[in-house]
Amino acid sequence: MRIQVINPNTSEAMTHKIGLAAQAVARPGTQIIACSPADGPVSIEGHFDEAIATLGVLEEVRKGREQQVDAHIIACFGDPGLLAAREYASAPVIGIAEAAFHMASLISTRFAVVTTLTRTRIIAEHLLQRYGFSELCTSVRCIDLPVLALEESGPELIECMAEQARRARDEEGAGAIVLGCGGMADLGRQLSEAIGLPVIDGVAAAVKLAESLVDLGLTTSKHGDLADPISKPFKGRFAYLSR
Amino acid sequence: MRIQVINPNTSEAMTHKIGLAAQAVARPGTQIIACSPADGPVSIEGHFDEAIATLGVLEEVRKGREQQVDAHIIACFGDPGLLAAREYASAPVIGIAEAAFHMASLISTRFAVVTTLTRTRIIAEHLLQRYGFSELCTSVRCIDLPVLALEESGPELIECMAEQARRARDEEGAGAIVLGCGGMADLGRQLSEAIGLPVIDGVAAAVKLAESLVDLGLTTSKHGDLADPISKPFKGRFAYLSR
Amino acid sequence: MRIQVINPNTSEAMTHKIGLAAQAVARPGTQIIACSPADGPVSIEGHFDEAIATLGVLEEVRKGREQQVDAHIIACFGDPGLLAAREYASAPVIGIAEAAFHMASLISTRFAVVTTLTRTRIIAEHLLQRYGFSELCTSVRCIDLPVLALEESGPELIECMAEQARRARDEEGAGAIVLGCGGMADLGRQLSEAIGLPVIDGVAAAVKLAESLVDLGLTTSKHGDLADPISKPFKGRFAYLSR
Amino acid sequence: MRIQVINPNTSEAMTHKIGLAAQAVARPGTQIIACSPADGPVSIEGHFDEAIATLGVLEEVRKGREQQVDAHIIACFGDPGLLAAREYASAPVIGIAEAAFHMASLISTRFAVVTTLTRTRIIAEHLLQRYGFSELCTSVRCIDLPVLALEESGPELIECMAEQARRARDEEGAGAIVLGCGGMADLGRQLSEAIGLPVIDGVAAAVKLAESLVDLGLTTSKHGDLADPISKPFKGRFAYLSR
Amino acid sequence: MRIQVINPNTSEAMTHKIGLAAQAVARPGTQIIACSPADGPVSIEGHFDEAIATLGVLEEVRKGREQQVDAHIIACFGDPGLLAAREYASAPVIGIAEAAFHMASLISTRFAVVTTLTRTRIIAEHLLQRYGFSELCTSVRCIDLPVLALEESGPELIECMAEQARRARDEEGAGAIVLGCGGMADLGRQLSEAIGLPVIDGVAAAVKLAESLVDLGLTTSKHGDLADPISKPFKGRFAYLSR
Amino acid sequence: MRIQVINPNTSEAMTHKIGLAAQAVARPGTQIIACSPADGPVSIEGHFDEAIATLGVLEEVRKGREQQVDAHIIACFGDPGLLAAREYASAPVIGIAEAAFHMASLISTRFAVVTTLTRTRIIAEHLLQRYGFSELCTSVRCIDLPVLALEESGPELIECMAEQARRARDEEGAGAIVLGCGGMADLGRQLSEAIGLPVIDGVAAAVKLAESLVDLGLTTSKHGDLADPISKPFKGRFAYLSR
Repeated sequence: MRIQVINPNTSEAMTHKIGLAAQAVARPGTQIIACSPADGPVSIEGHFDEAIATLGVLEEVRKGREQQVDAHIIACFGDPGLLAAREYASAPVIGIAEAAFHMASLISTRFAVVTTLTRTRIIAEHLLQRYGFSELCTSVRCIDLPVLALEESGPELIECMAEQARRARDEEGAGAIVLGCGGMADLGRQLSEAIGLPVIDGVAAAVKLAESLVDLGLTTSKHGDLADPISKPFKGRFAYLSR
Repeated sequence: MRIQVINPNTSEAMTHKIGLAAQAVARPGTQIIACSPADGPVSIEGHFDEAIATLGVLEEVRKGREQQVDAHIIACFGDPGLLAAREYASAPVIGIAEAAFHMASLISTRFAVVTTLTRTRIIAEHLLQRYGFSELCTSVRCIDLPVLALEESGPELIECMAEQARRARDEEGAGAIVLGCGGMADLGRQLSEAIGLPVIDGVAAAVKLAESLVDLGLTTSKHGDLADPISKPFKGRFAYLSR
Repeated sequence: MRIQVINPNTSEAMTHKIGLAAQAVARPGTQIIACSPADGPVSIEGHFDEAIATLGVLEEVRKGREQQVDAHIIACFGDPGLLAAREYASAPVIGIAEAAFHMASLISTRFAVVTTLTRTRIIAEHLLQRYGFSELCTSVRCIDLPVLALEESGPELIECMAEQARRARDEEGAGAIVLGCGGMADLGRQLSEAIGLPVIDGVAAAVKLAESLVDLGLTTSKHGDLADPISKPFKGRFAYLSR
Repeated sequence: MRIQVINPNTSEAMTHKIGLAAQAVARPGTQIIACSPADGPVSIEGHFDEAIATLGVLEEVRKGREQQVDAHIIACFGDPGLLAAREYASAPVIGIAEAAFHMASLISTRFAVVTTLTRTRIIAEHLLQRYGFSELCTSVRCIDLPVLALEESGPELIECMAEQARRARDEEGAGAIVLGCGGMADLGRQLSEAIGLPVIDGVAAAVKLAESLVDLGLTTSKHGDLADPISKPFKGRFAYLSR
Repeated sequence: MRIQVINPNTSEAMTHKIGLAAQAVARPGTQIIACSPADGPVSIEGHFDEAIATLGVLEEVRKGREQQVDAHIIACFGDPGLLAAREYASAPVIGIAEAAFHMASLISTRFAVVTTLTRTRIIAEHLLQRYGFSELCTSVRCIDLPVLALEESGPELIECMAEQARRARDEEGAGAIVLGCGGMADLGRQLSEAIGLPVIDGVAAAVKLAESLVDLGLTTSKHGDLADPISKPFKGRFAYLSR
Repeated sequence: MRIQVINPNTSEAMTHKIGLAAQAVARPGTQIIACSPADGPVSIEGHFDEAIATLGVLEEVRKGREQQVDAHIIACFGDPGLLAAREYASAPVIGIAEAAFHMASLISTRFAVVTTLTRTRIIAEHLLQRYGFSELCTSVRCIDLPVLALEESGPELIECMAEQARRARDEEGAGAIVLGCGGMADLGRQLSEAIGLPVIDGVAAAVKLAESLVDLGLTTSKHGDLADPISKPFKGRFAYLSR
C-alpha cells in the first residue's frame, strides 16, 4: 500500500518531519510518500496562505493519482482543499484535522485542540462545525508561536503546550488533546507524558484511517458532489486543467 | 493483536456471522475473538432489549479484559453500553454505529442509514446527535424486518434495502450508505453493487478503527468521566462487582 | 393515586430520604411507594454504575407494574433506563433530571445544575442535549463530593453548593438552580435561602409531573419506539424476561 | 388554590370553553378564574394580533395579581407576553404552548403539533426553538381553518385534524400530538380516539403545571431578567403604569 | 426616499439623538423622519417595557404607512414588534439589532455586543438565536448602566464600554463590537478609537439596509406569515384596529 | 465610490452580465468595475473549480487593491475565497451568497435557494451553516442545468426555476427566493413575477451592502484572523507573493 502524505506548505524540513511521523505508525508494507508543493507559502497561518496552498495540494494530488497511490493525506491542520481533492482524486483523501478529531472522539467524551497562532483558531472552529465535532471540543487553544518556530523550539515549547492542555483538562474537562498543527507531529509523546492525557497527532491518525479505508475497499463516493470534476475549459495558466 | 468482537445479543448464528465479517477485514496478525453474552435477548430491537443486553456486554468486556485483548468492539448498531465499557475496560472500545458514521463521513458529505425496524430509528438518531453527525446524515431509513429475519432472507432483502438506499441517494443526496444493524454485516457488497454507492458496515469499520488505535498507542482517556469505575460495594447478584 | 419512586441505587438510607422528599410534596391522596433494587451499586457515579443500576430500575418497574401503580419515578439524576422503562411500563415514567429541567425552564430563562462529582457532569450534559435544554443551562457545576458523603454532611455541604450556585448566578446569569443528585432531595430549601434563587429538586418535581400526567389521563405513547418491548426469547439468567 | 386562565383574545365563547377545559382537569380545591381582555382582537392569527393581545394579557395579569391568584395561565398557543408576564407577576406564569411541549416530551420521543392557519406555523416554530424542543417536534401541521371557525365545526374538523396527525404519526414517527390552539381545548379526546395517539391540550397541561409549581413553592425567579420591571415613568395612555 | 426611524421609547432626547445618527449616514436625498410614540415607557429595559412599547411602535408604523414612507426602522436593540410591524407595514421594516448583527458578520468572523443592563442580555441572546447569529457572537456584555444614564455620561462611559469590548477582543477573539442600545448611537467612533476595532451602531446600519432594500425594490414578502394581518374585529380601546 | 465586482470564472459573457446587474442597482456616483480572472475555469460547479478559481479571485483583489477600489464583490454563489480576500484586501469584501442570505432574512422568516446543479447544493448548505442561516432556509433546490447553459436559455428556464420556487413556497413555506448563481443575475424580475414572491439576486444585494459599508466607514476588522496575511516567503510560481 502506498500512501501519499502531502505537506501543503513548501518547507522541506516540515515535510521530512511529517514523513517520519507518518512512517513511524504505518504498518509494515505501507509505503509513505511524503511530498510538498513546489509552489506556495512556507507555512500556512491564515485563510490567504491556505487558499494559495490549496493549489499546491491539488497539484500533488494529481501527481499521486498518476502514481496510483492508494490514498492521499493532506497534512495541514486546516485540511486545505479537502473536498476539492476528494473530487479530483480517485483514491480516498484524509485531512489531518478530521483524522485527529475522529480519533479523539473514540477515546474521550470531550477533547481540546492546542494549536499555534490565535489567528488560525477560526479555521479549526469552522472545521469542527462542518464536521460535527463542535460540541465535543471544549476549546481551541493557542500558544501564539508561528508554525516554523516549532522547528527550533526546545523544552519550553512542550511546557507552553502543556500549560494550555492542562487548562483544558482542569477547567474544561477535556480528556484528550489534539495537536493542532502538522508541524507538531513529533511532539505527541512528550506532551502526553507532561499532562497525563492521550494526545492525538493528526498525521499519524490520518495514516491509520487511510490504511483502514483501503483495507475496507472504501473510497470517496463518486455519486454526487464528490464525483470527478465536470470536464470544462480552463483558461490562462490553468489551461492544462482543461478536459 | 487480539480484538474482541462482542455481539450484544445471544444469537450464536449472528455472532458467527459478525465474527466472519470482522475476520475478513482484519489484517494478518489480528486475531478476532467473537463472542456473545450467555444472558440476554436474542435480538436487540428497542431500549429495553438494549438495557438488558448492556449487562451482557459488560460481562464480555470483563472477560476480554482478563484475556488482555487489545481492543473491544460492541457489535450492535445502538452501541449499547459504550461509555460504561470505556470506563470498565483498559483497552479501547469501539461501537459499530460510531465506527460506521466516522468512516462514512470520510468518503461522503452526506450519508444515510438503512436499518431494520422503525422503532429502532430513534436509537440511531440519538447516537447521531450525541456523536455530532446529525447534520451529515440525511435520514435513518427502515425496512421493517426484525433483526433475526435478516438471517433467512434472500435476494428480496437486498432489494428492500436498495429501495430505501436509492431514495436516500436520489431524494436526499446521500453519497454513502451505512448498514444499520450488526446482522447486516454480510450484505455490504451486494447492496453497494445494487445502488452504486459505497456501503459501510460498522463491524468491519470498527475492526479497522480498533487496529488503528492500537497501532497509535491510544486508548480511552482515563482522566475524567471515562476513568475506571469508582470502587464501591454492589449488592445482591451484582455483589461480585464490588471493589 | 399510587406513585412508585425508584431509587436506582441500593442505599436504603437514600431511598428513605427520597421517599420522604416525595411524600412531602405529594398531595393528599397520593401514596408514595419508595423502593430500591435488591441488586446493584450503593451509589451511581458514572456510566458503569448507571448501566448496572438500570437492571434494578427495570426490575422495580416490573414490580410497580404488577402492583398497578399509577406512575413510576426514576430518582437518580442520570435518568438511568428512562426510555427502557417507558417501553416496559404501561403507566407513565418520569426521570428526576428531566423533571427538574422542565420545572426550571418554567421559572427562569437560564438555570444551572449543581451536582456531586465532576466525572458525572458528562451524564447531565448528555441529558440536557437529548432533552433540548442545552441552551437554557448555563453550566453543570460540581462540588466533588461522593454521592454517599451527602448523607453525612453538615452546613459546609450547603456552603459548598452555595458557592457553585452563586458563581452560576453572578457569572453566568442563572436564575434558578437544579439539584443534580437524588441524594440532595432534602437540601433545596436551605440552598435557596443561602443564595436567594429558586432551587429545584427533581424528586419533588417528578412527583408533581407524575400526578399531572395521571390527572390528564396521559401515559407513554405506545405507538412507535416506546411501545411494549417486542416479545422474544431471553437466555440465561434473563430467561424470565422471555415472552 | 386559585389559577387565573387568561384567554388572550376577546372572544367570550372561547374564554368559556377554555375555562371549562381548565376546570375539568383542575383538582378539587383548585378554582379556575377564566378571563379575557376587554380590549384586543377576537382571535390571534399572526404576529400583529399577538402584539396587540399582549397588552390585554398584561392587563389581566395585573388584575390577577391584585386578586392574589396563585398562578396565571396564558391560554393562546403563541404564549403571547409570557416573559413580560413573568416579570410583571409575582405568582408563576405558564403558557399553554410550553406546557403542551413539556408534557408531550414526557410521554414520547417525537411529537407533532396540529394547529390552525399556516401563517401561524412560524410562531410555533420560534417557540420550539426558544424552548429547546425543535429536535423533538417532527412538524407543525396546519388545517388552514381560522381560529374562530373551530367554534362551529362538526365531525369534519376532527377528521381534518386527524388526517394531519396521521401523517405525522406514519410519515414522521410522531408518538404524540400537541393541539396547537387554545380553541381546540375540547377536541383532545376525540382526536386521540381517531388516531390512537395521546393528544395533549395545552390548557389542561398548563393547569397541572401551575398546580405543580404552587405545590412545590416555586415561582418565577426574581433574580435577573425576570425580576419585577424597573420602576420608571410611562407616558400617555400608559401613564398609569408609571412607578 | 423617506425613512421613518421609530424610537420605541418615549424619551424625546433619545429620539433626537437617534435621528441625528440616522441622518448622519443617510445619503443625500434620503429624508429621516425620527419619531417616537406618544404612549409608553421612557426607556426599554426588559420584556415588560418591550411589550408595552410594541404598541407604540405599531402606532408609529401606522402613521408612517399613512405618510407613505419608504421604510421603517425600529430603533431599540430588542427589535420590539419587528415581525408584527412587517405584517402591518407595506414598506420594509428593519430592526437595529438585526441590522447591526448583519453588518458585523460582514466584517468579522466573531463579534461581541456591549449593552446596558445585565437583565436585558437575554433579549439580545434570544434575537441572536432567532436570527442565526449565536455562533458568531462571542458574548453579550453589559456595563450595568440604565439606558437613560447614557444621556448624561462623560468619558468614563466610553472607558466602561471599552473595558468590556477589550475583554471580548482579547479573551474571546471578537473582531468587531456591536453597540447594544439605540441610546449608544453617538458613541461608535469614540469606542472604536479606544479599542482599535470596528464598532457597529445599529441605527446607522439599519438606515443603510433600509436604503438598500428600497434601491433593490425589495419589501417584506407578503406571501405567508408576514402577509397583512387578517381582517377581524378588535374590541374596546383597540376597536379602531378592526378591519 | 468604486466597487470591484469580480466574476470568479473566466467567462466574459457572464462577467458582462454580472457587471450590468451590478450597475443597474448601483446608485449614481457608484462606479462598477466588473472583471474576471485571466486564469481559471469557465464556470464553477464544484469544490475543485472553486479551489482553482479562488486564485483568480485573489489576483483580482490584488488588482482592485492597487486601484484603490472602495469595496470588492465576489460574484459566485459559493463565495470562493471570501475569508482569504478579507485578509488580503483593505477595503471590505462581500460575497454574493452571503449578501443574498442577509437580504432574504430581512424580508421573510423563511427563504429558499434555487440554484443550478445538484452537485453544488452542498456548497450552499455549507455556507448557510457557517453564516448561521441554516434554520432560515427551507431548502436549496436545483434545476440541474449547467451554469453556462443559463446564458442560452429561454422562457423554459424561468419556468424550470419557477417550478422549484413554487414547491419551496407551497410545500415549505418559503416567503422569498434567493437566486443561487451569479449567472442568474438577470432573472430575478421574471422569476418574481412568475411566482409572486420577492426574489433576491446576490450580485445586486452585494452592491448595496458594499455601498452601505463604505458609507458607514466600516471595513474588515484587521484585528485577529482577518488581519493582513503574515509576511513570509512563497516559493515557485507564487514567489511574487512573498513579503
